[in-house]
Amino acid sequence: MRSVLVATDRIAAEDLTRLSKFAEVVEAWRMNDAEILPSLPVVDAAIILGWPSFFTRENLSRMKKLRFIQTVSVGVNQVHFQDLPVRVTVCSNAGAYSTGVGEHAWGLLLAAAKRIPQADAAIRAGGATIEGFRAEAKDVMILRGKTMGIVAYGGIGRAVARFARVFGMDVVALTRRRGGDKGVRFYRGAKGLKTVLRLSDAVLISIPLTRLTEGLIGARELGLMKKDAVLVNVSRGDVVNQRALYEHLAANASFSYATDVWWYREGKETLETEFPFSKLSNFVGTPHISGPSTVASGEPQGAAVTNTVRYLRGLRPRNVVDASEYQRSG
Amino acid sequence: MRSVLVATDRIAAEDLTRLSKFAEVVEAWRMNDAEILPSLPVVDAAIILGWPSFFTRENLSRMKKLRFIQTVSVGVNQVHFQDLPVRVTVCSNAGAYSTGVGEHAWGLLLAAAKRIPQADAAIRAGGATIEGFRAEAKDVMILRGKTMGIVAYGGIGRAVARFARVFGMDVVALTRRRGGDKGVRFYRGAKGLKTVLRLSDAVLISIPLTRLTEGLIGARELGLMKKDAVLVNVSRGDVVNQRALYEHLAANASFSYATDVWWYREGKETLETEFPFSKLSNFVGTPHISGPSTVASGEPQGAAVTNTVRYLRGLRPRNVVDASEYQRSG
Repeated sequence: MRSVLVATDRIAAEDLTRLSKFAEVVEAWRMNDAEILPSLPVVDAAIILGWPSFFTRENLSRMKKLRFIQTVSVGVNQVHFQDLPVRVTVCSNAGAYSTGVGEHAWGLLLAAAKRIPQADAAIRAGGATIEGFRAEAKDVMILRGKTMGIVAYGGIGRAVARFARVFGMDVVALTRRRGGDKGVRFYRGAKGLKTVLRLSDAVLISIPLTRLTEGLIGARELGLMKKDAVLVNVSRGDVVNQRALYEHLAANASFSYATDVWWYREGKETLETEFPFSKLSNFVGTPHISGPSTVASGEPQGAAVTNTVRYLRGLRPRNVVDASEYQRSG
Repeated sequence: MRSVLVATDRIAAEDLTRLSKFAEVVEAWRMNDAEILPSLPVVDAAIILGWPSFFTRENLSRMKKLRFIQTVSVGVNQVHFQDLPVRVTVCSNAGAYSTGVGEHAWGLLLAAAKRIPQADAAIRAGGATIEGFRAEAKDVMILRGKTMGIVAYGGIGRAVARFARVFGMDVVALTRRRGGDKGVRFYRGAKGLKTVLRLSDAVLISIPLTRLTEGLIGARELGLMKKDAVLVNVSRGDVVNQRALYEHLAANASFSYATDVWWYREGKETLETEFPFSKLSNFVGTPHISGPSTVASGEPQGAAVTNTVRYLRGLRPRNVVDASEYQRSG
């Protein structure tokens, strides 16, 4: 019987039971490093959320049978691809977060478009009046009739496109795919990105962070966007150049950025930014809560187990990652 | 030729031109009271936003020909029905705000469900960490699979029902109508209201403020709702009993209230509440911005002019108000 190492405590008992019908389950999150060590040579597959601390280069070299890693997260940029032999297939959990993260993205868009956090904070601070806010009514964006841009069109992008259409928006999307989807105009490549940014009143960033997409949205790209656009990020902070964004927000009061994701600092996502975004009223932030709130529903873990079972049964697993887009020199 | 008094400056030139083909337009908002006086006896109809200060009982008695009042607002509770002779038909602007107010309502719901203003404020305050927020992930509401309650099913309610359905929610609605709408279960009367409140994870208040609906949501009604429900109000503050709401929010930390509308004080809607809602983290407020932001789009004024033109042409106007629901003893 094969062996699956489970490195996260977030998987429900019934999903572990389901998994145990196809493999011996090593619940590594219950063990200390010394206890894990004897299992490493027999492990065929692993289910992880973050990158486990015991997945050091040394320990990975002990895992001679490891052929498959499934992440519970939708992004896989935490994976140390440079330490993995080519025989190891890495699968993301694309699609498993479309509901929760899509909903959160739409909440961020509406919060920024309607200026909800700003108004709520001003009322809490005291002294505000209904009449005093009347002058700001014209700055509230009505979504109906506007254009929603999606960068790029994966599971979360597709969910947001459906919301945009029922809100009466035109939808334009960056994609690698051929073909189309009802009511969505597709664009491809670097030129396509520019077109999407230029056309859109609101833009969703839902593209994976890879070495190709790091800093994808810089000063030039922000400069292509409409002056009063809303940019929503539910992917990873580092898809956007931090300095360029800060300067763009500081110079364009009617442009908004609403994000659930933050920049990495020494390899760790943190609310501590290099520029004082919290001083800007056109910045709205939540603390990377969309993924964990979806994990709280149990759905992504179920999908991760299902895909691992596919692998164990000899079926072609879904969401195989192209490692060449992630390997870094550093 | 008949005469229409226009008491608001918010109507676009092209809409006034359209109106002037059917009546002499008296632009009262440009005049002082002395200038308005000679026009009063000849006015057949009036378009108003708020209740004009010169619509005193005395001046109304001079408007012997007045037969029609059209409001630009969707609510008509500002109208002094007790001072109007029965010959005057009052029309609301129902339907004209469905887009703007519906969008705002959905923004308030998502803001409260995803705790966006609270998270944004906590991050701005400094010292927060992504890890520190992880424990709150389970408190974030995923809308998919939940039940949306609509009180009641008018233009705004219908718009919100469409959003709810594309978000994968079941929809239950209070209505006076017969028949149904795709994917919406209808309930009627006092018993229907209780059922809607009991079934729903999120409830929209979009019922007009009348003498029948003032204080409609009190301690008993709040007590019927789920402990972690979100209550959204885009109608009028006074549909909800202020003290009962405060006590319910203070006692139930996972219940949320998100509102764009505020209670009246001496006849005027004001952010100054009788209870310290701003101290509660489960209260989200915007300063009655949804209507004005829709007015900024020009659509409601166009609809108000269109309905007035219907009246002038001898057609049956839409949205005739039942004055008996508004007349008050006080």
